[in-house]
Amino acid sequence: MEQSFLAWLRGRTASLPQAAVGIGDDAAILELPAEMVGAASKESLVLCTDMIVDGVDFLASEHALRSIGRKAVLINLSDLAAMAAKPWSMLVTLSLPDSESTRIAAEVYEGILEVAKEYQLSICGGDITVYHGPLAISVTMVGLVPADRRWVRSGAKVGDAIVVTGAFGGSILGRHLDPTPRVELALDLAAHWQVHAAIDVSDGLSLDLDRLCAASGVGAEIDRKQIPIHADAIRLSEQDGIAAEEHAWGDGEDFELILAVDPSEVDRLLASPQRVPLTRIGTFTSRTGLWNRQRVDERPGNDGTSVASKGEVKYSSQLVRLSPRGFIHGRR
Amino acid sequence: MEQSFLAWLRGRTASLPQAAVGIGDDAAILELPAEMVGAASKESLVLCTDMIVDGVDFLASEHALRSIGRKAVLINLSDLAAMAAKPWSMLVTLSLPDSESTRIAAEVYEGILEVAKEYQLSICGGDITVYHGPLAISVTMVGLVPADRRWVRSGAKVGDAIVVTGAFGGSILGRHLDPTPRVELALDLAAHWQVHAAIDVSDGLSLDLDRLCAASGVGAEIDRKQIPIHADAIRLSEQDGIAAEEHAWGDGEDFELILAVDPSEVDRLLASPQRVPLTRIGTFTSRTGLWNRQRVDERPGNDGTSVASKGEVKYSSQLVRLSPRGFIHGRR
Repeated sequence: MEQSFLAWLRGRTASLPQAAVGIGDDAAILELPAEMVGAASKESLVLCTDMIVDGVDFLASEHALRSIGRKAVLINLSDLAAMAAKPWSMLVTLSLPDSESTRIAAEVYEGILEVAKEYQLSICGGDITVYHGPLAISVTMVGLVPADRRWVRSGAKVGDAIVVTGAFGGSILGRHLDPTPRVELALDLAAHWQVHAAIDVSDGLSLDLDRLCAASGVGAEIDRKQIPIHADAIRLSEQDGIAAEEHAWGDGEDFELILAVDPSEVDRLLASPQRVPLTRIGTFTSRTGLWNRQRVDERPGNDGTSVASKGEVKYSSQLVRLSPRGFIHGRR
Repeated sequence: MEQSFLAWLRGRTASLPQAAVGIGDDAAILELPAEMVGAASKESLVLCTDMIVDGVDFLASEHALRSIGRKAVLINLSDLAAMAAKPWSMLVTLSLPDSESTRIAAEVYEGILEVAKEYQLSICGGDITVYHGPLAISVTMVGLVPADRRWVRSGAKVGDAIVVTGAFGGSILGRHLDPTPRVELALDLAAHWQVHAAIDVSDGLSLDLDRLCAASGVGAEIDRKQIPIHADAIRLSEQDGIAAEEHAWGDGEDFELILAVDPSEVDRLLASPQRVPLTRIGTFTSRTGLWNRQRVDERPGNDGTSVASKGEVKYSSQLVRLSPRGFIHGRR
């Protein structure tokens, strides 16, 4: 339901005052009114909110409540990272089942407090309701970003390199509960490199890449063989028989970043030391959609199994349209 | 559970960065870092979040979903009013029952959008989850307040007048669903008068007055006969036989403000034209607790029924300790 409802909502909010970046990006950007903060202000406020619910996003019967508390904060930090924003403070709302509510609240907060300490976040407010329903944790995160450094989904340009952080797939084996939001990396990159757009991968590499493309009005030509595959994807593949590449393509909850990097800088960026491995997987193009560029050996009679290096044989390439796959909210 | 849990949480967050005003007030205040917004900034950010849940705070089977959407926003605006903050933007998180979720979301949003338009608020973000549970609406409100004008709970001084807006009691007859947050009044008062502290009445006049006293380290001496009684309290009294005064004292969800007004200004304030009736109901004192000052006719043999005016007969007064009454979250 979420995507179509958000489209409806965007229409209905057209007559309201608008945020600088509003509904539909990883986080919203509010520009502080100049008359209130002085013309010298170059800072924008970044806000996002994400809720996780027992039975939908986690299973309280299987996962430690402390981990669930951590996850509720970490996924919001990942949204801030996608805007290159510095985390500042958060509000935490708990919906607690009416049995053992105090114990549950305390255990969830253990995880929340751990992450708050790690990221030096204040907890400035919240709400607690005890009700007849499943545990739900809603976090609203507040960050700051210099106006000239912020990243949005809609900034990718034709020719930009598609660069991803880390590796993908198989997060369900446990990594999804304790992701590492790319907050510090994002702040470093935004300070030193021309990144035109970003999104964090919560619903699947291909699905979130498709969303970034849609927001920017571009397409993506990728080389699927370049996609970094996480060891978890390989382990999961051994369990379920689905190719690790497919897990990397569609699993979701990797909480890595997809970045649109200025083509003039991408080689230097990839050669520079960074906190997290960066990999180029393709290029943003004017042709919309996701496309895989496959190399085709053109030698007559070639059976396709030989390995050849550039210069030895003549290759052409062909584009094959790819389908984004991942987790669509509300369709589970 | 809420008060004791919040006390525990305040202790546990002691090692984290602190908001200028954090957990425990109607809203939090975050001071924008000077190096980021320039030294000229006099503005603080005000944030609050409040959730309402079907079966706890409303009954979806009895109340229109549009009204429930309105209420979810209005109660947060009331919290901003208690800080004298100007509403700016909000994030809305919906937990939707898995049956008819799209219809419910649309109807709730009708009410949310109405209030957003009335108060010229942007909706900068949110989240939606469809789950097996009751409708819940969580709103996080963002406001701004000049640092030298903001109100907090802890600012009441001995000698300050206790002034209330509007009238109290009987909101359950329907007013609780469509309160009028005192946003504009608060902005007017903060701009022109010395108000040292404020709180909004969500859980009951006496209970919220007691909380303001506790936060400020003062007591309150009031004249219960001065408390403005809402017509709804009288109607409710006719239905349930409980005195209208008792309804005014403890009902809650009035969403009026209790203000601590500088004694040098209070008479002029009360004589000035305002958007909403203002009434003085007492004085903040050094003796902690809530006290009712009752006048006692000291003439020997007086049966206490005569009506006498000042100067004719000799009165003394006596203080009687009052018990705060209202809605304690989590004890329903």
